[in-house]
Amino acid sequence: MKIGVLGSLTVGRTIAAKTAELGHDVVLGTRDPAATLARSEPDAMGTPPFAEWHGQQPEIRLGTFADAAAHGEILFNATNGSGSLEALGLAGADALRGKALMDISNPLDFSRGMPPSLFVSNTDSLGEQIPRTFPDAKVVKALNTVNASLMVDPGQLTGGDHDAFVAGNDPEAKAEVIGVLRDWFGWKRVHDLGDITAARGLEMYLPLWLLLFGAVGSPSFNVKVVTEQA
Amino acid sequence: MKIGVLGSLTVGRTIAAKTAELGHDVVLGTRDPAATLARSEPDAMGTPPFAEWHGQQPEIRLGTFADAAAHGEILFNATNGSGSLEALGLAGADALRGKALMDISNPLDFSRGMPPSLFVSNTDSLGEQIPRTFPDAKVVKALNTVNASLMVDPGQLTGGDHDAFVAGNDPEAKAEVIGVLRDWFGWKRVHDLGDITAARGLEMYLPLWLLLFGAVGSPSFNVKVVTEQA
Repeated sequence: MKIGVLGSLTVGRTIAAKTAELGHDVVLGTRDPAATLARSEPDAMGTPPFAEWHGQQPEIRLGTFADAAAHGEILFNATNGSGSLEALGLAGADALRGKALMDISNPLDFSRGMPPSLFVSNTDSLGEQIPRTFPDAKVVKALNTVNASLMVDPGQLTGGDHDAFVAGNDPEAKAEVIGVLRDWFGWKRVHDLGDITAARGLEMYLPLWLLLFGAVGSPSFNVKVVTEQA
Repeated sequence: MKIGVLGSLTVGRTIAAKTAELGHDVVLGTRDPAATLARSEPDAMGTPPFAEWHGQQPEIRLGTFADAAAHGEILFNATNGSGSLEALGLAGADALRGKALMDISNPLDFSRGMPPSLFVSNTDSLGEQIPRTFPDAKVVKALNTVNASLMVDPGQLTGGDHDAFVAGNDPEAKAEVIGVLRDWFGWKRVHDLGDITAARGLEMYLPLWLLLFGAVGSPSFNVKVVTEQA
């Protein structure tokens, strides 16, 4: 299948590498491919330079956001939340039209220092802003609640006995995203939380995620919803 | 031990009944005890009238917020979040001074319909507003992430293999609250998330809790933090 991944940092690389490993035809999009390839130092978050990673992933083509969006039959928004709307604008509304777009981004605002706050929350969400701005994209919020490594390999924790969540308005796109989570990435437990307004709850979980990161001492954790049945 | 519980709805009744059952000396505080006792119909949320419940709990004394706060050596804020600051004001800063105050409230705003939003979030929290207003109270946020029944009986789900969280500035008060959670209520897994600013994350989890309530179909659920160790 043709895959378009928007974002060249850890989440984008992880999604691109996993889908390529599964045999899909992947284009990873960034704002300025030449600039992305030219970087030779880790970024402020410690992410290794793209070219170093890309050397191990020769089957993944690097392009612009527009290249990746035009290529993909399914799209992944793996950009930083603060740049998501701009990146999707560069991708172009035409290229997004009618496609499932898994939105993994979080509206983290680092401008006031650590820990980050959210630049949209409570009565709105980034997950809602995207389809409001690009009404023909079929946005499904998913995987924003775990670190990149777990997104594509949930089995690394307790054999995968923990939970993924999805939210979106389009039933077919949601089914497609649930299929990706289950069949490609190995998620056994996926909760459908309803329409895209549920992105509020998924994004507002991030402050607790950041606190748990501190308490656990590692980003490799997740939550399991415990019910009377299980 | 002398216990002061602020709030006469489900959470307050549940905390009062459990601590009384353990042999503690409990005063439950409400705004207007005569009015609370006079109600003969369930409230808008379906909570049965207080007098009906109180008939089964004769050892629990009903008083004003001030009575409960003056009585308790440890206090529980079990009021609705929208009324918490006013209730604590009626309790009186003098009565709160130097005491551990377990704050169970959530800043839910039902004024815009369902689902509720939060009337404070992101860069502040109700858990922080309380000690800012009453600096001599030793506020510890806890148990706002589960329904009343689970608060005092976590073993009803998977033998208690799921998580409670605490946040607060005063180490002694936090240790006291952790003791209550573990020794009185039976919580096996309690995460200390740090100072009271962590109340932001605990309160911002509520929208996800409400979504999970819908997905699970019951309020009797919780999350377990799954790590590489467990």
